[in-house]
Amino acid sequence: MAQRPELTVYDWPTGPYPARVRIAIGEKNLQASVRFVPVNLWKGEHKTPHFLAKNYSGTLPLLELGDRTFIGECTAITEYLDALEGAPTLTGATPREKGLIHMMSKRAELELLDAVSVYFHHGTPGLGPAVEIYQNAEWGLRQRDKAIRGMHYFDSILRKQPFVAGQTFSMADITLIGGMIFAGLVELPAPTECTALEAWYAHMQERPSVKNRLTISRPAEIPSSS
Amino acid sequence: MAQRPELTVYDWPTGPYPARVRIAIGEKNLQASVRFVPVNLWKGEHKTPHFLAKNYSGTLPLLELGDRTFIGECTAITEYLDALEGAPTLTGATPREKGLIHMMSKRAELELLDAVSVYFHHGTPGLGPAVEIYQNAEWGLRQRDKAIRGMHYFDSILRKQPFVAGQTFSMADITLIGGMIFAGLVELPAPTECTALEAWYAHMQERPSVKNRLTISRPAEIPSSS
Repeated sequence: MAQRPELTVYDWPTGPYPARVRIAIGEKNLQASVRFVPVNLWKGEHKTPHFLAKNYSGTLPLLELGDRTFIGECTAITEYLDALEGAPTLTGATPREKGLIHMMSKRAELELLDAVSVYFHHGTPGLGPAVEIYQNAEWGLRQRDKAIRGMHYFDSILRKQPFVAGQTFSMADITLIGGMIFAGLVELPAPTECTALEAWYAHMQERPSVKNRLTISRPAEIPSSS
Repeated sequence: MAQRPELTVYDWPTGPYPARVRIAIGEKNLQASVRFVPVNLWKGEHKTPHFLAKNYSGTLPLLELGDRTFIGECTAITEYLDALEGAPTLTGATPREKGLIHMMSKRAELELLDAVSVYFHHGTPGLGPAVEIYQNAEWGLRQRDKAIRGMHYFDSILRKQPFVAGQTFSMADITLIGGMIFAGLVELPAPTECTALEAWYAHMQERPSVKNRLTISRPAEIPSSS
């Protein structure tokens, strides 16, 4: 029997929220410590009683620790990973850094990522009728408009500073990357005048953690020797 | 000219989100370092261009540092306050604590506090027609139902452990307190069978930080000597 890897991440590799944790894992260079278990979003496997017992909110990704503690929510998982060893690099070291990174990450959720998600699940067919058992199209379309406004806002921020929360890469950039990934999936391009946002996004896609996020999974059935 | 206090909090004392930061300030015993500036929610002062320039998302509370950095979002402000001095007491010390506290705090937002907020702003007259320029009643009522389910969920958690994220008081308790305050304001009582939730809430209301949260403000016009 192979030794159990330290960490298990339940996710769906191409999902925008899973991308956030995959990027964080890459930034922290923790790939070798993580086993990935796919949960098929398109089949609604994240809404089954079996999965909901692990994560009440029915969302991906989900982290399982060696003691069978489950940690959901991207920010919470990132806090866990960032605290694992050495100095924090994604969530800030000083009070001011922590405050700004958490604010800008939450803002990237509120104003772009979560807004695009609501648009996808309510203003489009989303994951299909078997999974989307309730839709509110009007609300979905309002959130699409909010997301476009959010792109203008982040463009204005990125005209003034190289990263979302200031002078260094952080969790806030990862959250905005998640938003841009989701916007791409639902074909909601950034307005052409948002050139600073586009330049930042092109720059982000050159980072190894972003570029390689889909290929860091080791198949679950391959025994780990670590 | 009086010396400027170190920290300024823009809020509306009876608001459920402002309550979260007021409780955190009390828990960290930082009352004497904070100047409170009222922003009248009922007059929509949080949606004026003047305020939006400080906080794009137009939400209260908002923290201003001595260098005129603005930090919005309760979790971000709490991270700032908790990192100010000594060991963290609200957001966790170990990776596991940080992960669990952030997860449960986010879950208290998603499943109760934010759901009640959407119900208030969309399923009731909210802050009135001058402020609520768009309402989606159907969405609001769905979120009311989600909040009731959330109360059952947190009741099940509090049957197993004394605090929302485990064995000690944390930011997650504060977020759930915010949810229960908002539920009280919109007359959405916890189902009678949620006895563990009610017992926890009664216990929480005995904490000085919770009990005294409305009276920690020093009038803005009184010069600070600290």
